[in-house]
Amino acid sequence: MLKLIQFRLCPLSRSVRLTLAELELAFDLVEERPWEYRAEFLSLNPAGEVPILQLEDGSVVCGSYAITEYLAEGAKPPSPEVRPMQVLPGGREDRAEVRRLVDWFHGKFSREVTREVLAEKIIPRLAGRTEHSPDPEVLRAMRANLRYHLGYISFLAHQRRWLAGDEPSLADLAAAAHLSTLDYLGEVPWEQFGPAKAWYARVKSRPSFRPLLADRMPGQPPPLHYTDLDF
Amino acid sequence: MLKLIQFRLCPLSRSVRLTLAELELAFDLVEERPWEYRAEFLSLNPAGEVPILQLEDGSVVCGSYAITEYLAEGAKPPSPEVRPMQVLPGGREDRAEVRRLVDWFHGKFSREVTREVLAEKIIPRLAGRTEHSPDPEVLRAMRANLRYHLGYISFLAHQRRWLAGDEPSLADLAAAAHLSTLDYLGEVPWEQFGPAKAWYARVKSRPSFRPLLADRMPGQPPPLHYTDLDF
Repeated sequence: MLKLIQFRLCPLSRSVRLTLAELELAFDLVEERPWEYRAEFLSLNPAGEVPILQLEDGSVVCGSYAITEYLAEGAKPPSPEVRPMQVLPGGREDRAEVRRLVDWFHGKFSREVTREVLAEKIIPRLAGRTEHSPDPEVLRAMRANLRYHLGYISFLAHQRRWLAGDEPSLADLAAAAHLSTLDYLGEVPWEQFGPAKAWYARVKSRPSFRPLLADRMPGQPPPLHYTDLDF
Repeated sequence: MLKLIQFRLCPLSRSVRLTLAELELAFDLVEERPWEYRAEFLSLNPAGEVPILQLEDGSVVCGSYAITEYLAEGAKPPSPEVRPMQVLPGGREDRAEVRRLVDWFHGKFSREVTREVLAEKIIPRLAGRTEHSPDPEVLRAMRANLRYHLGYISFLAHQRRWLAGDEPSLADLAAAAHLSTLDYLGEVPWEQFGPAKAWYARVKSRPSFRPLLADRMPGQPPPLHYTDLDF
């Protein structure tokens, strides 16, 4: 059985988790706290980062870029009912558009929003750094950045059925993974971004999303609307 | 003709530049200062980031991830003399190792080293922010991080002929792109990292590297050893 070594609020981990589910691959989850830099964990990925996909033979594929491309290369051609999802659908130019957006979310969005939120609101508490309190300046900048990104998602969702085009793709999974982490923390002002909200409701309704929405951080419940498909 | 829109000290741009050269594709260079957020530039890539590859029909592929995968998908099978370089050589597991390392350099290394150096030492000056002086704390942290990364490169270069295995790949181009930017700025303590230095000398000797080594930032010459192949 495949094993996904992850941290449950890590957006990159969530993105791989959704990809595995969309490809209808069975996997076990192993929770890791990457900031503890356990020796056994570092021996699997010297970068000290999640996600890590452990294959049946014990070898590992490290990082969301390598994992999702690895999975896409191995995916079966879609059946007539287009199951499983093609994570990199279409032709060469279509795949470039999917990858541009994956990079947007795992690169730019991560730097400007999710990485900051996790570093301020989550990791210090889990790491027992009780003296830490979130920096209001950082949170304010992060929230301003988030509004800009939600505006861009709304722009895309207004023009296209899915973020990268007519078909759902890894771009939707990557974006939704980041938003799901922020939504768990009550950080997404959905009401002001209608098309982004409508798009997220559609992604969230996919069966691949169910286990992720059911997952909980001990001691930190999500807001009530988090699991609601008609939020 | 292909057109690469880039900033000459941007490591991601350099990585694509090397990839295009290794694939023996002809291209024109267009210099962009992404921090100026020109409207015409943002209309090509709303992320406001370089590199951007403009294709012959005027359409664009944005970001090093999308560009290098796009180029790898279109690359001709290698001839018996293995020209051009296969940027993603080998089988599915080999490609996963290449991508892990590309992610290491364009993600982790970039965050911990090159992005900081450019933000402290280069962009403020070019943006005319004359009141800015580099933060010594940030530079100290960056230099400590760089030593850790050079140690890892030495570790890999000691065990393998090229960073990802027996064949040169995009992993070498990505790593060398970052190091070439730092080397231009005189930031690499080569003498303390013998295997990394020997590996870099080999990458630097490839014909793909020549135009890059000849390129200059106006008003900011590189140290003398920068272009020396036996530095």
